[in-house]
Amino acid sequence: MKKIIDPWGAGLPEDYERIVKDFGLEPYRNDLPEENRLMRRGIVFAGRDIAAIAGAIKKKKPFYVLSGIMPSGEKIHLGNKMVVENIAYFQKMGGKAYILVADLEAASARGISLEEAKKRALNFHIPAYVALGLDPKKTTFYFQSENKKVIHMAYEFAKKITLNEFEAIYGSADPGRILSAITQVGDILYPQLEKPMPGVIPVGVDQDPHIRLTRDVVRRTQSKYKFVLPSSLYHKYTPSLKGGLKMSKSEQGSYIELPEDPKSACKKIQRALTGGRKTLEEQKRLGAEIEKDMVFELMKQHLVEDDAELQRIHDDYKGGRMSSGELKALACEKMTDFLEDFKSRLDKARKNIEELNFVKFS
Amino acid sequence: MKKIIDPWGAGLPEDYERIVKDFGLEPYRNDLPEENRLMRRGIVFAGRDIAAIAGAIKKKKPFYVLSGIMPSGEKIHLGNKMVVENIAYFQKMGGKAYILVADLEAASARGISLEEAKKRALNFHIPAYVALGLDPKKTTFYFQSENKKVIHMAYEFAKKITLNEFEAIYGSADPGRILSAITQVGDILYPQLEKPMPGVIPVGVDQDPHIRLTRDVVRRTQSKYKFVLPSSLYHKYTPSLKGGLKMSKSEQGSYIELPEDPKSACKKIQRALTGGRKTLEEQKRLGAEIEKDMVFELMKQHLVEDDAELQRIHDDYKGGRMSSGELKALACEKMTDFLEDFKSRLDKARKNIEELNFVKFS
Repeated sequence: MKKIIDPWGAGLPEDYERIVKDFGLEPYRNDLPEENRLMRRGIVFAGRDIAAIAGAIKKKKPFYVLSGIMPSGEKIHLGNKMVVENIAYFQKMGGKAYILVADLEAASARGISLEEAKKRALNFHIPAYVALGLDPKKTTFYFQSENKKVIHMAYEFAKKITLNEFEAIYGSADPGRILSAITQVGDILYPQLEKPMPGVIPVGVDQDPHIRLTRDVVRRTQSKYKFVLPSSLYHKYTPSLKGGLKMSKSEQGSYIELPEDPKSACKKIQRALTGGRKTLEEQKRLGAEIEKDMVFELMKQHLVEDDAELQRIHDDYKGGRMSSGELKALACEKMTDFLEDFKSRLDKARKNIEELNFVKFS
Repeated sequence: MKKIIDPWGAGLPEDYERIVKDFGLEPYRNDLPEENRLMRRGIVFAGRDIAAIAGAIKKKKPFYVLSGIMPSGEKIHLGNKMVVENIAYFQKMGGKAYILVADLEAASARGISLEEAKKRALNFHIPAYVALGLDPKKTTFYFQSENKKVIHMAYEFAKKITLNEFEAIYGSADPGRILSAITQVGDILYPQLEKPMPGVIPVGVDQDPHIRLTRDVVRRTQSKYKFVLPSSLYHKYTPSLKGGLKMSKSEQGSYIELPEDPKSACKKIQRALTGGRKTLEEQKRLGAEIEKDMVFELMKQHLVEDDAELQRIHDDYKGGRMSSGELKALACEKMTDFLEDFKSRLDKARKNIEELNFVKFS
């Protein structure tokens, strides 16, 4: 099958090219075996030390995949969904998964109390991750505030970084964010405390500063720890439904939340920016400008798993055999299915929250 | 008895006057009941909210006294001795004493491992504090690294301070020192978690930034915690034996360590800067320039407990009836007694280390 999805074809390609160049990332070039949808379609677009993870998978060597939950609201978004899909992929490929609740960071960077953070994580965020495909039986969970080893690493690593370096990496620095970032470094390296091994952090590219900080710390603590430099894997943002680089809470109608009422989501899809022509006649004659179509992008990133099906939609829409209204109706139908399925999985996961593998700390 | 000791008469008075003015401290004016040697003699020279503690003592209300041990070496110094003497005073006056081992700070600000810090504190620093007069039976001890409540407060309070404020208070900022300082804030307020009450931190005046930071945090967290603003009590530095504001490890022969071989200490006293005259005849005729005499200052601050005895030495030396050599011989004798006594108390305290009240954390 010919590849319809150009890795650089979605969203605002020049932004991603610039990011890769500016931060010295590796472009993702189908490096991993048995790729998931995000990898096949170039939504995963870059990373660091991807070969270390590809190698561990191929040689069946131990590696880990890790992500943090920031319990700052009672909703998550499609970016979180992509992270979970990638974690689930690495779990399937033999990686040991860690999910930490960043309750200390919620306190230091966002002023959320530990009690509130814990409550939100247990009531919503962790069940939501399970609903999105995380295999809870194969996942180790912990709360930062209870993990003294992580905290102790944070204090130790703080000595390894200057304020200037911090500002160079993050663009700014304040006490809360410094504590938050340095604690993330502890989290990312925690799975290696017992035994150094490769690990991968699948994350939005805006999180790359944490990866760089962690890799700097790893280099500076080699004499003591022998940590392996952690790998990372970056996915693109889901573009705003109104056009533009990403969905954002500050732009009304630009984003879909999880959970969200399907009617509300469909209304946003109805009003989304499309690449359809002004008249039905023009649409039939010229076909859609598909690279400008935010609804097609949503289908590609999130709603259509099967490549052949996506190819058909692509060809029909671009070829003028499908109208913009028909595409939106199809997207609404698929979004409704997804949101309803998410909701019922979420309810089920909530009931089973007690069975998760939380690390017991002495 | 007339007061021979002018509170502003020792060391470099203008420095202390300036410090009081610049930092908005309260001058200490014999505010506390049943004063100890340091208070009577103006070596304790300033503080913050001293009246709150004086009031608690007089009304027999609950209050606490707290200090931290920084296990960064295998020696302590005469400044630590003054802190312990003040803690012992407040213990006697009914205060609840807390001694914490700042092992997280040792890691974040000085790069000392937690294991090493713990070993040093148990083998040396805590027994040394007991040897200097701390009542271990009435003292609560803890290690920062084991006290999650302190750590959680540190993360929470980090959000309350900007980098600019931190730099304004400390003159500079780096990640290690930020973590260190913010954790001290947690320590200082920890005894109030169960019930807000006055507390006093007796400390060298160079530690005032921590007190200011803590008081700022207290003001900003009133809606949640109702902490009482902590009080502080500042003592002067012990001046360098060679003259100058303070004993310093960077100036050879300027300082006495604990423990130290009495012979080595006496040699330093022999070489100290005195206010004795050039010839014995002049000394008899004019008397010593006692305000320039570092040996007399050492006697006043550390070696002579009895005021009447100190008065006699003062009058004899200033009146020309005692030579500088005689003063030094007397100081050496008293220093030898003190160092030998310290050593034997230290050995005894080491044997009883298991009996201390360490907080058990779940």
